Amino acid sequence: MRSHYCTDLSKDNIGEIVEVCGWVNSYRDHGGVIFIDLRDRSGLVQLVCDPDDSKQAYDTANTVRNEFVLKAKGKVRARGEGLTNPKLKTGEIEIVISELIVENPSKPLPFVIGDKDVGEETRLKYRFLDLRNEKAYERFAMRSRAAIACRNTLEKLNFLEVETPILTRATPEGARDYLVPSRVNNGLFYALPQSPQLFKQLLMCSGFDRYFQIAKCFRDEDLRADRQPEFTQIDIEMSFCTQEDVMGVAEEVLKDIFKVCGYDINPPFRRMTYKEATETYGSDKPDLRFDLPLVDVIDIFEKSNNEIFSNIAKDKKRNRVKALRVPNGDNIFSKRQMKSFEDYVRKFGAQGLAFIQYKEDGLKGPLLKFFEEKDIDELVKRTRLEVGDVLFFGAGAKKVVLDYMGRFRIFLANEMDIIDKDRLEFLWVVDFPMFEENDDGSFSAMHHPFTMPNNIDDDIEDITSVAYDVVLNGIELGGGSIRIHKNDIQQKVFEKLGIDEDEQREKFGFLLDALSFGAPPHGGIAIGFDRLMMLVTKSSSIRDIIAFPKTQRAQCPLTKAPNIASDEQLRELGIRLIKKDRK
Amino acid sequence: MRSHYCTDLSKDNIGEIVEVCGWVNSYRDHGGVIFIDLRDRSGLVQLVCDPDDSKQAYDTANTVRNEFVLKAKGKVRARGEGLTNPKLKTGEIEIVISELIVENPSKPLPFVIGDKDVGEETRLKYRFLDLRNEKAYERFAMRSRAAIACRNTLEKLNFLEVETPILTRATPEGARDYLVPSRVNNGLFYALPQSPQLFKQLLMCSGFDRYFQIAKCFRDEDLRADRQPEFTQIDIEMSFCTQEDVMGVAEEVLKDIFKVCGYDINPPFRRMTYKEATETYGSDKPDLRFDLPLVDVIDIFEKSNNEIFSNIAKDKKRNRVKALRVPNGDNIFSKRQMKSFEDYVRKFGAQGLAFIQYKEDGLKGPLLKFFEEKDIDELVKRTRLEVGDVLFFGAGAKKVVLDYMGRFRIFLANEMDIIDKDRLEFLWVVDFPMFEENDDGSFSAMHHPFTMPNNIDDDIEDITSVAYDVVLNGIELGGGSIRIHKNDIQQKVFEKLGIDEDEQREKFGFLLDALSFGAPPHGGIAIGFDRLMMLVTKSSSIRDIIAFPKTQRAQCPLTKAPNIASDEQLRELGIRLIKKDRK
Repeated sequence: MRSHYCTDLSKDNIGEIVEVCGWVNSYRDHGGVIFIDLRDRSGLVQLVCDPDDSKQAYDTANTVRNEFVLKAKGKVRARGEGLTNPKLKTGEIEIVISELIVENPSKPLPFVIGDKDVGEETRLKYRFLDLRNEKAYERFAMRSRAAIACRNTLEKLNFLEVETPILTRATPEGARDYLVPSRVNNGLFYALPQSPQLFKQLLMCSGFDRYFQIAKCFRDEDLRADRQPEFTQIDIEMSFCTQEDVMGVAEEVLKDIFKVCGYDINPPFRRMTYKEATETYGSDKPDLRFDLPLVDVIDIFEKSNNEIFSNIAKDKKRNRVKALRVPNGDNIFSKRQMKSFEDYVRKFGAQGLAFIQYKEDGLKGPLLKFFEEKDIDELVKRTRLEVGDVLFFGAGAKKVVLDYMGRFRIFLANEMDIIDKDRLEFLWVVDFPMFEENDDGSFSAMHHPFTMPNNIDDDIEDITSVAYDVVLNGIELGGGSIRIHKNDIQQKVFEKLGIDEDEQREKFGFLLDALSFGAPPHGGIAIGFDRLMMLVTKSSSIRDIIAFPKTQRAQCPLTKAPNIASDEQLRELGIRLIKKDRK
Repeated sequence: MRSHYCTDLSKDNIGEIVEVCGWVNSYRDHGGVIFIDLRDRSGLVQLVCDPDDSKQAYDTANTVRNEFVLKAKGKVRARGEGLTNPKLKTGEIEIVISELIVENPSKPLPFVIGDKDVGEETRLKYRFLDLRNEKAYERFAMRSRAAIACRNTLEKLNFLEVETPILTRATPEGARDYLVPSRVNNGLFYALPQSPQLFKQLLMCSGFDRYFQIAKCFRDEDLRADRQPEFTQIDIEMSFCTQEDVMGVAEEVLKDIFKVCGYDINPPFRRMTYKEATETYGSDKPDLRFDLPLVDVIDIFEKSNNEIFSNIAKDKKRNRVKALRVPNGDNIFSKRQMKSFEDYVRKFGAQGLAFIQYKEDGLKGPLLKFFEEKDIDELVKRTRLEVGDVLFFGAGAKKVVLDYMGRFRIFLANEMDIIDKDRLEFLWVVDFPMFEENDDGSFSAMHHPFTMPNNIDDDIEDITSVAYDVVLNGIELGGGSIRIHKNDIQQKVFEKLGIDEDEQREKFGFLLDALSFGAPPHGGIAIGFDRLMMLVTKSSSIRDIIAFPKTQRAQCPLTKAPNIASDEQLRELGIRLIKKDRK
């Protein structure tokens, strides 16, 4: 129906008869001539409806309102002198219309397109209007390009995309499964997959060698700002590989995705052990766009005797004393501000937040009187404390201290505005612990129970795994591991997790069988595609990169669970509703 | 872990030290030397484990059995004279092993890999073994290539891939929806989408202009040989387009998919109206690899008076008399065979199956005595009947006659073995009726209620629609239509379907809203990707192109609906099981 998209037209087309289609972005009558800015997905072009050129076009133009859908035919001409619009791609030309057709009128819109102050509920109710703007389109175009780039890169690297089922058996992967009643098997339920993990491992056992999928996954969890109940991941698995092989593939994929989105990134990314990440940055996904490392100072106080840290320092395994030097902090923050920071860390379990100021005339702070001179000297030396700096202290149980000091580090960086928003700091965190202790003293798998341990026969808390996370600017993009391919190791892991043989057989029998019949060494990774696209498009809301989202405050009418189960349907499914009070 | 895939190696690598990984396909001890055929996804290579070269390798080789997973290092050498194997890609070389590692042993397999006589249940129970063969791998590689080719073609044509939700609202599209209880909204259910139809139409209303998705769709229907409850379709929608535009895009996509699968096809495909297809071939998806057209002869009998056809011929609108000429049929089939064909058509509602043989000495057949001379002459002329031919007749109610004669046409072609299995006959069937009559006299939409009618104000049975199906060798690959973009037409269609305003609002309110605010003219198509891949790979079972299928007789353990709903889960979902006798 069209000969050109609006912004295909330029001075090169002057004199040509063209046809364009799109929406009325704006219109005005100026001296008996109607000017319409016509919009399609490419952008705007100006239509001129002059009764001297075409009475029909002018009369039709007289009836149009914003968002009417038009088809227009006319001749391209240069705009008059002084009338060009440098802000528009097509600002040097306009189309003199000879034929104008209203393909569809539009009621007045409930909100102005592109208006950012529209409430979430309204935006999602009229999602088709909310998406009707160039920026939205550009973000989805980027998402499409990114997915295609990902696929082409993986195909080039000899990976096959294999579709795995959505209606599957439940496998215990941490979160709640969505259940789907099976009509033909009364009383039985399918589960929607939390990931294609087992399927891809089975494909490795089939000798497929290199698998990938951009896969929909499901978790019946409460909504959060960046979490949908259904989400998309780039899922990769390969055989006869090392950790470095998998990382290399992931880096290649990320490089090409970022490339089509306008960024040049240069793998290989930096590597850091889980231990270094948590001890130095208080996080297993440190943001490395700024420094502010945590310095371990527990040994300084180990042999001292002061009221503040010495008791804590006696148990170096379970406790931590960490110092965080803020360069020039004494000049940036007032003492009152420094004191107020305690409120922030208390939210995450801190008992307090001591600090020392390095003034021109020496160190200041109520702590100092408890410290021995040599300890103070060692502190200054180790943290490279200089005049104008502040040193904050976190002390207490390891897990708590690392957590709140890690958060405090980011809090400070934001307060100081030292984070370069344009920097992309990728990082691999490696050597994760295999198990983590639950509150009740039992252990869970930190990644999942199919992760290859480095040292399965060691004490459970010392066992590490061949697991790795890829982190960008403090956000976990994805994670993976080398998997267990030997039955005996898999069973040892199940034992440590307290899963007995019956349970193993029931829940993982299919996998254990597969491991018994020539499973190859294999490993892989899953990268969260939604989160990646939020970062790449600098979006703050999941709405920007998911076409029909469910958000905390509102849902698109087409994705809202409606009460559609009729009595007949329920009977057929073999289920009955339990009447509960609505929350 | 490897330097080469097995079949990467050739005479060019002689003298090189290489590392390969894979499965023991076979092994034999020959004169104190062990020969192993090692298999990876690329194919086979021969390993030579000679104790004179490496005692370690020989001793290890002595322990291996079929399907053990090995890593082997050694030097490539030419095979001795007379020892080359022309059947193998690597048949001119072998690797003299210096280091052999068993990465994983294997228990004896429950069946020989590639054995076609294994029962479906066993194959699916051990799906990872069932897939462990070159042919299976090749088919999935083809599927992966086809999907990527499809995406690249559509990207080239300016389409965006947009992911639409899996957890949606139910929309009435014919089949049963899968329902998913929502935990956070007690008593409410999501539905899994039967297609992204409404979503893609909304994206057109958002001005996305060209959308596609390779989308998972769901129908809670009973299994058939070529139907899964979850299936994949290539889903396309575009704005400001004609039917020809959509067809052109689909042809481009199919051309490129077939190309990466080894076929050159040449669009544009032939076009045929629904009327011609059903009247001439008795099917809206005719197989054009052979001819055997149905010839309309009702008018010949309209004015005659014979006991056989004249009553039927009186109602030319509701009835049909069709003649099917079988060239040389009298020489191919015995009279007994011809009579037996009646049994076939009776299954589809035929009252009988009259026929005339054209012998050297003239026409023969019990019918003839009822026909007038001039009618016989006209029959011979119109059907171009020649000596040696047979002419079959179908007569009765239009729908029944077209159906059984269409089936009979295919039946005959198979009996005569005149279908060239290597031919690809694509066809567009166009101008479908908008509505079809139900048994109770009400009408349903033949495609779906969003299809643009050509002539909405005509009598309901005369209304046609801008709908089109693409057919390959008698199989419907896909179908689409230009959609209704105007509210008033949409409402007229709903009225004809007997959907009142309340129901319209409740079920389609979101769409009607979208049509009111500047919906562009748009249309699209959906192509069944699973079915397409079955045709392209010449597969007879869905098992060949779906990695973890659900079949009629058996299901892969990982996709079998298990009784995983615990009492606690059910309580949380707000549902209770109704005890029914298991079927």
